[in-house]
Amino acid sequence: MDQSAALIDNPHSHVTFGEGLELECGIALAPLTMAYRTYGTLSAAADNAILVCHALTGDQYAAETHPLTGKPGWWARLIGAGLPIDTDRFFVICINVLGGCMGSTGPRSPRDGGVAEPWGTEFPPVTIRDIVAAQAKVVTHLGIHRLFAVIGGSMGGMQVLSWAATYPDRVFAAVPIAAASFHSAQNIAFNEVSRQAIFADPDWRGGRYWVDGLVPARGLAVARMMAHITYLSEEALTRKFGRRVRRDPHVAPVDADAPLSLFGEMFEVESYLRHQGSSFVRRFDANSYLTITRAMDYFDVAMDHGGDLSAAFAGTRTRFCIVSFSSDWLFPTAQSRTMARALNKAAANVSFVEIDTDKGHDAFLLDEPDFDRTIRGFLSGCAEHAGLG
Amino acid sequence: MDQSAALIDNPHSHVTFGEGLELECGIALAPLTMAYRTYGTLSAAADNAILVCHALTGDQYAAETHPLTGKPGWWARLIGAGLPIDTDRFFVICINVLGGCMGSTGPRSPRDGGVAEPWGTEFPPVTIRDIVAAQAKVVTHLGIHRLFAVIGGSMGGMQVLSWAATYPDRVFAAVPIAAASFHSAQNIAFNEVSRQAIFADPDWRGGRYWVDGLVPARGLAVARMMAHITYLSEEALTRKFGRRVRRDPHVAPVDADAPLSLFGEMFEVESYLRHQGSSFVRRFDANSYLTITRAMDYFDVAMDHGGDLSAAFAGTRTRFCIVSFSSDWLFPTAQSRTMARALNKAAANVSFVEIDTDKGHDAFLLDEPDFDRTIRGFLSGCAEHAGLG
Repeated sequence: MDQSAALIDNPHSHVTFGEGLELECGIALAPLTMAYRTYGTLSAAADNAILVCHALTGDQYAAETHPLTGKPGWWARLIGAGLPIDTDRFFVICINVLGGCMGSTGPRSPRDGGVAEPWGTEFPPVTIRDIVAAQAKVVTHLGIHRLFAVIGGSMGGMQVLSWAATYPDRVFAAVPIAAASFHSAQNIAFNEVSRQAIFADPDWRGGRYWVDGLVPARGLAVARMMAHITYLSEEALTRKFGRRVRRDPHVAPVDADAPLSLFGEMFEVESYLRHQGSSFVRRFDANSYLTITRAMDYFDVAMDHGGDLSAAFAGTRTRFCIVSFSSDWLFPTAQSRTMARALNKAAANVSFVEIDTDKGHDAFLLDEPDFDRTIRGFLSGCAEHAGLG
Repeated sequence: MDQSAALIDNPHSHVTFGEGLELECGIALAPLTMAYRTYGTLSAAADNAILVCHALTGDQYAAETHPLTGKPGWWARLIGAGLPIDTDRFFVICINVLGGCMGSTGPRSPRDGGVAEPWGTEFPPVTIRDIVAAQAKVVTHLGIHRLFAVIGGSMGGMQVLSWAATYPDRVFAAVPIAAASFHSAQNIAFNEVSRQAIFADPDWRGGRYWVDGLVPARGLAVARMMAHITYLSEEALTRKFGRRVRRDPHVAPVDADAPLSLFGEMFEVESYLRHQGSSFVRRFDANSYLTITRAMDYFDVAMDHGGDLSAAFAGTRTRFCIVSFSSDWLFPTAQSRTMARALNKAAANVSFVEIDTDKGHDAFLLDEPDFDRTIRGFLSGCAEHAGLG
């Protein structure tokens, strides 16, 4: 199979920048292709654009049926006509991150932009700032100087912070959700285990799995399963699954008369996780997973400003709305509070909302009416201040 | 190499029961070999014995140099002359769990007790009750009817509860530490991911890795790394490692002039986890890991008593001291509190202590003076009530 040809024939809506992008690591990546989707209509003044930033395993299909999975967009609940991110009013942009695998330049892209083999593991390390710089090129390409709002959860929230710190004049309002200004030791540790799980897979082949048409499916599934636990709360797992069991079709009972009905059965939570793992590997590239988790680990806004987080936002006129979830232990409320304090110290306009929920980190993707009301209210208020029609 | 011969030549102190043990799954395991260590001297009345139960990856070498690693015993800090578990006063027993890999019958044992090949993945599923039943045979063999105390942390605490529920007349005092009366959905989920990590290793060979002299080292290391994160608190990880980096000797910097010194370096927490993973696989058997994690998942004391935890302890005269750690998120304080409430409902003699610490689940293995004082005080008080000299 001619991998390169398939790669060049990008099935996703995209724009290519011939001049490329110089990355923080010093490597110039050219050409640079960015895949994106838009919803709603850009106003004549180009002042109603909202950039929605996706999380680690998300992509640009935020508000429409996903072309690979056939499932609704990951924020279809929030983005649309009359919804909190109202497409009757706002022009919504969602861009596949640099290093991703849904049409933007990443480890699957041909190395010289032409017919060479894919980058694979040789794809240069990228940072959240690189990801944001690549997005900025798309935003400019769309004729937009200043975004009305940048909004995103988890790694999407990291991008929001990076936008606000790097391009303060291009962001009227910023909504970092379930995020932090740096990746914690615990989160780096979980990411490292997921990388090791991928490396342990025999089909990993040192990262050149595509040569033989393979994917390190088992390792990537293990990585996804582990990460998935961290996205939920203990309460949510208990509520959804508890200790309920189901018959494991692959295991015969040891002894039909055994007093414990458990043997030959599996816990529902196991079956659920296996499904999460196996469906993930059908849509995600392992080298992208490695690249993007690394970008998260590098993330530390304060580090770019002498270790002082408030200095990163000195003089900002952006309006911030920081959102956390009470049961999120991956990006706990304390980390959002640290952000809020630093922004207060920088005399920024900031509101901070902790949503009371037992759904854990993933709450930003789930039905959480208080959260929806918060987003709708903040965006409406900002639109009024910005003089949007 | 003649695997079987090596297996029969058990280098660990042990006792073999020809009649074996009938497991809860209905399978009779015969003969049954149990490896154990003792410290201190049994009194003439045989009333001063303390059974110390080890955790998932622990073993019987609780208070002496480990024969494989050369490190001090895992509870050398607590067990010894003049220490909280005072060997001048008590006779301390520690037994390698059934299903383990340090001399007790387990997946590495020859299948027919003789020259056949090891059980491997065909080793029957065991439960915490089976583990405790096998321990009870050793205790009887040592001439002890009633234990002065049973004490253990994590999975060791599960064994303590099972002892108290199954043999109430044989346990004067019980100290379950950092434990729970059932394994939660979140903990089952983490265990399942660790099992999948082992299965994903090419050297796993369907569980028959020993045939080719292999071990699924990468998968087992991933399992251990992930589990290790859950044993620590976010605070402990931050305190120990934060976001400090060190040069990765295996990775050349992408660009020596790169503005980010991070490329070509790794976070200290990553290096630490890799070390934890690789040192673990040298001393632990993958099939034992699978067997024991399964036993933990099955654990639910209430289930054996119609779903009523207090019924499991009805009429008990055992004195309980339940200990939890404030930053333990694997076996959170709330689960210990549930135990304490059920024991109160059963009119049991129970005290409940939450130790304030940021060290997480592993605090029971670490230097924590408040914890040491709690153990010493409870055992002394009980010894007085028991009329021990």
